[in-house]
This record gives sequence, C-alpha cells and structure tokens, in this order.
Amino acid sequence: MADQSALFTDRYELTMLEAALHSGIASRRATFEIFGRGLGARGYGVIAGPARIAKLLDRFTFTETELDYLERNSICSKETLSYLASLRFSGSIFAYPDGEIYFPFSPVLRVEASFAEGLILETLLLSVLNFDSAIATAASRMVLAAQGRTLIEMGTRRTNEHAALVAARAAYIAGFAATSNLAAGLEYAIPTAGTMGHAIVLAHDSEAAAFCAQKAVMGEDTTALVDTYDTMNGIRTAIEIFGPSLGAIRIDSGDPASTAAQARQLLDSLGATKTQIIVSGDLDEDAIKHLNVAPIDGFGVGTKLVTGSGVPTAGFVYKLVAIERNGERVGVAKQSEAKTSDGGAKTAYRRTRGKRAIEEFSLDPAAVIASTSSDELRELQIPIVSDGEAVIVDDLERWRRLHRESLSEFGPTHEILNTPSPLLMCRYIGPGTLGG
Amino acid sequence: MADQSALFTDRYELTMLEAALHSGIASRRATFEIFGRGLGARGYGVIAGPARIAKLLDRFTFTETELDYLERNSICSKETLSYLASLRFSGSIFAYPDGEIYFPFSPVLRVEASFAEGLILETLLLSVLNFDSAIATAASRMVLAAQGRTLIEMGTRRTNEHAALVAARAAYIAGFAATSNLAAGLEYAIPTAGTMGHAIVLAHDSEAAAFCAQKAVMGEDTTALVDTYDTMNGIRTAIEIFGPSLGAIRIDSGDPASTAAQARQLLDSLGATKTQIIVSGDLDEDAIKHLNVAPIDGFGVGTKLVTGSGVPTAGFVYKLVAIERNGERVGVAKQSEAKTSDGGAKTAYRRTRGKRAIEEFSLDPAAVIASTSSDELRELQIPIVSDGEAVIVDDLERWRRLHRESLSEFGPTHEILNTPSPLLMCRYIGPGTLGG
Repeated sequence: MADQSALFTDRYELTMLEAALHSGIASRRATFEIFGRGLGARGYGVIAGPARIAKLLDRFTFTETELDYLERNSICSKETLSYLASLRFSGSIFAYPDGEIYFPFSPVLRVEASFAEGLILETLLLSVLNFDSAIATAASRMVLAAQGRTLIEMGTRRTNEHAALVAARAAYIAGFAATSNLAAGLEYAIPTAGTMGHAIVLAHDSEAAAFCAQKAVMGEDTTALVDTYDTMNGIRTAIEIFGPSLGAIRIDSGDPASTAAQARQLLDSLGATKTQIIVSGDLDEDAIKHLNVAPIDGFGVGTKLVTGSGVPTAGFVYKLVAIERNGERVGVAKQSEAKTSDGGAKTAYRRTRGKRAIEEFSLDPAAVIASTSSDELRELQIPIVSDGEAVIVDDLERWRRLHRESLSEFGPTHEILNTPSPLLMCRYIGPGTLGG
Repeated sequence: MADQSALFTDRYELTMLEAALHSGIASRRATFEIFGRGLGARGYGVIAGPARIAKLLDRFTFTETELDYLERNSICSKETLSYLASLRFSGSIFAYPDGEIYFPFSPVLRVEASFAEGLILETLLLSVLNFDSAIATAASRMVLAAQGRTLIEMGTRRTNEHAALVAARAAYIAGFAATSNLAAGLEYAIPTAGTMGHAIVLAHDSEAAAFCAQKAVMGEDTTALVDTYDTMNGIRTAIEIFGPSLGAIRIDSGDPASTAAQARQLLDSLGATKTQIIVSGDLDEDAIKHLNVAPIDGFGVGTKLVTGSGVPTAGFVYKLVAIERNGERVGVAKQSEAKTSDGGAKTAYRRTRGKRAIEEFSLDPAAVIASTSSDELRELQIPIVSDGEAVIVDDLERWRRLHRESLSEFGPTHEILNTPSPLLMCRYIGPGTLGG
C-alpha cells in the first residue's frame, strides 16, 4: 500500500472518470495546469516535488487488491475498472524544476494528456507539490536568515513519519546542510547529522559519565549537549572530558542569544576557541535572523521547518485549462478564475530586465521571445515526463545549485526575506488581466 | 523503504545507543514518557496514533539494506550494527488510546523497556503521535462546530501523500463521516465520498452535458457541483436534468452563507425540497460555527483539517523519566523539566467529581485510588504492546465511540469549543508542583 501511488487519490477522480468514459470525452486531448494564488505574506515560493512526481508516475498503476476494493465497494463500474486495470500514464508533464522560485499564478506544472489520464493525476500531483514546496519555501527563508551559518534539519518527530523523508529532501534542496533523518539519508543520499540527546545524559550516573561514553565511541570531534543540568557547568565538564578540541556544544534551552554569548566566553577562557556553538529549540527564520549578532555557528531546526513555518501547504490548485472540442483545442476556465486566466497552455519565462527579474507567461511562446531584446531569457518549465517516460533524474545537488542561482536573480538577501508581498507578479502576455 | 519503520529515526538515537552499549547502560531497565506542554489556545487535545504504533512495532526491524547504509556511512560501529541486526522491541507500552482526550502534562504514552530499546523508539513514536493527534484535535473541534451536520474529509491534496491516509484516519476517529481518500478507504475501511469536480463540467461542451453524463453513471442520488459558471443557473440546470430527487448540490465558491440561503430558496421553489446543500472551500471550525444559521447540510473540509487548523503538530516530547541504578529504579528529569515532574512512571486516571471531570496522575496508583470516594474512576493508559507483542487491534469504530464518550464528560459543546485555555490542568498526586 504505502509505496503504491495510483490509489492515493480522491474518490471523485474516479467518478469523474466514469462519467467521462460514458460520455465519450475521456480520450479528448487536454491540458491541466497547477498554480498558486498567493504566497502567504512572503516574497517568493520554492518548488519542490517535480522530480519525485516523475519517479512516482513510473509506479502509477492500480493493483489487483485496489481494483478489488473499488469493485467490492461499488465505487466504479466494470468498464471503469477495466480501464483502470490497464492504465499507464502516457502523457507529458512540464514543470518548474525542484529548487526553482515561483510566484502567484506561475504555471508551475503542466500536464498534456488525454482528459482521463490528466484528470486522474490531480490528487497525487497536488499532494506532492503542496507539501514539498511548503517545506522548501520555509527552508529557503531560514537559509537566507542564517547568512551562511550551518542549518541542520531535525523535524522528523514533529511531522508524519513518511512526510519527514520528503521534508528532509526539500530542506536540503533549499540549502540546509544535513538532516537528522536516517531514512532520508538512505533514500536521498542527504548528509546526516546527530550526536546526543538528553536521555543519554540522564541515563548515566552523571553528566561526566555520559560524556566519557560519548568520547569513547565518537572521539573529540563531536557535539556535546551541555544543557541537561546547568549549561555553564555542563560546558566545563565537557571541556574537561573532551579537551579543548571538542568539535561543538549544543544548547537546546534557555535564551539562545545570551546563553551563546556566555558559552562563547567560557569556551574561549577554557582554551576551546574553535569549539563551535550549535543552538536548537523552536527556531524559525525570524528567530534565526535575530540571532545574527550572537556567536552561534549553526542551528538545528525542527518543528517550524516541517510545518512550513506558518504556511503548512503551498495552496496549489490543478485546473483543466484546455480541451479538444470538435477537433480543436479550446481554452476553458471556471468563472471565478476567468479574471486571472484565459485558460490555455501557458509557457513561462524569466528574464532580467536591467537589475530586476521578471516572469512572463503566454499561450504563444513566440510573443514572449519576440518581446525580448538582449535580456537573458530562461524557459521555466522543463520536461519531466515525455509520452509516459520519466525524463529527469532526481539530482539533489543540481536542484540545490538551481535554487541558489535562481534566488540570486532577486537582489539583496534582507529585501527578499523581509518583503511581505510577492517580489514580482507574473506578467501574462495575452488578453488577460495579470499585471507586470 | 516506505513501509519500513526502524530507520525512520534520527541519527542521534543510534549514536546514543552506541555510547550506551559502550558504557554498559544499554540493558538497564528504563521508563520513557510522552507528554505535551500546551494545547495552543484550545481547551483539549485528542490522541490519535497508539493503535498505529502497535502495528508499526510489529515491523520494527532493520533490513540488510539499512544496516549496509549505516555501515558504509560509518554511522555505527560493528558492535552496534550487530545489536541492530537482531533488534526486536521486547518491552511494553501503555497509552491513552486513539480518541481519548488529553491535557498539558497528561502522560499519554509510557514505554517500559531496556534503555536501548526505549531510546530507539523515540523518533517514530513522536512522529506518529504528533501528526495524528494534531489532525484528530482539529477534526474534533470541527465536529463540535458542525453540531450534527455531516463532515467529509477532503484534504489529501494539501498534505503529503502518505500523511493524507493517516489524516483521514484521525478525522474519522474524531467524528468525520467519510473521507475522499480511496487509499485510506482501503487501508482503514473508512467510508469514502466524492462525486464531481470542476474539471468534468469544463471538459464537456456544456454544464448540462456534464450533468447528463453524471446522471447516466450515478443516477439522481448524487451530488451536483453547481458553481462552475453561475451558481443559480447551475442549480436550475441540475434540477432540470436530475429532477427534484437530486441527492445534493455542492457549492465551492462565493460567500457560503448567502449562497446557501439563495440556493435553498431556489431548490425549494423547484420542488427539490429534500436536495441537500454541501459547502466546501477553506473551512475551519470558526467558519463552520458561523455557518450554523445557514441552510447547509454538510461540509467538505480539506486544507485546515490536514494542517491542524493552525496547530500543525501536537508538540509532544519523549523523556526518560526513570532508570535502574545499582539495582534500583530512580526517577530522572532534565533541569528545565524538574519544575513540572519528579520523573518516575506515572499512572493516570480521569474521574468525575460533581459535574466536573478531573485528571490525576501519580507515581503511586494506590494514592489516586485511595483519594477516590464514590466517583467513577477510569484508568487512562491501556496496554498497547506487552513484552513486544501488540495487544490491541486498530478498531476505528471503538475509537470513535471512545472519543464521543470521553468528550461528553466535559459539559456543553460551545464551552468546550470556545475556551482558549485547557479545560483542566492535570493534578499530580505526589511531591511535584502541578496544580489541580
């Protein structure tokens, strides 16, 4: 069940499919798009998920057990079940790659397929993009706030056990250095980190005994957790036992700014001038930003990261934007969306005009290209699935680089982090109403 | 990978294990407890997850692939790897069952095991309880707000694809009637619901053509989505095609209160007096409460449910509270926790004193029982794993009933829903400082 992806869907996808098979529109060529309407008082969003989608669609089939479940519960007719039994996605998908920046109405993913095949992907594609991108966005903001200091993802315990793996992936794409999650380390080859928690200190007869055990198995290039009893005493004990070459101390309680300052002074006075200070405990991007003046070398971030730091879902929606009628492709849009879209399959570009990046999309790519002078122009959607075959591999180092480069087009860090509204509104080159 | 649970853990659990094996404390008998410190401006929390934990621990082993990963990355020594290779959890777990109400400092789960075996469960147990309970708590509040009207869980697309299954489970335990998620329907035998989305209406040449296709496959006892173009026109078209026996209409846009009132009037005037009105679109418990006067028969709830309606994680922590030293069990607590706990294994009870439910826990169960007169007394922790064997089955109907009954001990619905602070503080019978 858990690795199976075709039944990770809403029941209405299958009842719509049934109606479409009945009325004969199931095989019409169609275009679906994913976009978001806002960013929740932030300047930008970060995409994560497309490379996972490409992989999931390779396994997108209904098993015997699943078909049997649908039959026993009268969810589908025999005809629909037989369609599902042989279903393999054979269409094409274009998407902003993992790590790319997006804005309201950016057409971040486009599916070209039969109506039926496009329809049935809706729930899975949104689940992946909405969760992964929410985490990547929060992570990217924390990386900006940390100004080059190390960030370690430690949020597994505060989210669903499966979600934790992809949260670690999203955080790494956005620039985190490592994760505490070993399953994520294995699945995605992300560096892992972690040394000691309070339990091991409490379990030993004394703090010193715990540090001795730690030194015996990890040497002195390790991180000592010093706040179980009294932080400054803990530091003295740690340096006594590990010596002044101790790699780092971690502080998980108290006021981080003042405790770190005191700790730095004490470490220096004990000759442990190179011992780093790692802070953890309910940090978000604001807390990290305010700790910029404190002598902190790295942060462990958990809860706020894996819950999207106040924006736990990206809010993407999946819309049919074009369908074949009488042999012609026509744009469609729900009434309440018609003010922001004419429907139709949009191609999106980003370019730098003077010092400022802008994003444009159009039903007619030639129109965008024609409007470009010597600006550098980047097509934002890349093929991830072509005629049913995955055409990208999940290369986390590539997505990390892409994220850094894309973000660098948007000017000074503090501006990007602090703006409460989108850094840019996408410019729709066409008869719609989106502003530039 | 995805179904495997032993590697769903933080690296520091294994490095702590290594230190414990080295210093010889790994086999000491120990007690770990899970509790939360707050409820995020709410009156109560709802537990979900323990029955899942019992099932997950049945599969809690490290595979060859995982051990190989740990070795290749020098995460563990040979000795630790050999310990992990033969590791099966052989301890016992007691927990507030799925559906039970909890408060700050309620000892919601207790592990009795060797230090090593207890230690290594931390991350997985917290992941399950923190996510599942966050969703169950949000769901329970929505059920209270809906005052008997039907609630359908539709949030799959707004959370991780795996997390969505257990979100559906948690919502059902808390009183939701159904889920849209088919995989959850198969995995947990939860009733599923869902009919049509906007795509199927847009895909047909007209709204009428879409309704005809729907009627052909689903009959008239179905739900027509009427707001794709113009809601009132949509209702007229729906009644023309399905007839006045149409089961329900769904409205997913506009102001729900006024639209529902208009819709009810129109439906009645068309003779469709029994056609129900279902509303969906970014609802939370407050929105649902404010719609109490509107003629709405049911709600579809998505985003706010699966993201915990503002509290996306329950914030539970896992603490070593007792360990064997020189053959005796001694209570332990981190300094910053010592003000609220003396450590030690706590047994918890709830009882009704006069009209008011109270909760007490003690290191000495006899003390609680002795302090009881004729009050009804319920032991809150039940065994879920005994000597390594799961001793409960995941019976969702039982947890639903338990939730309803437990909640009924706390007085009028509106009071429970609206209070911004815990309905009660647990009373610690012992030398600690928790108030009654």
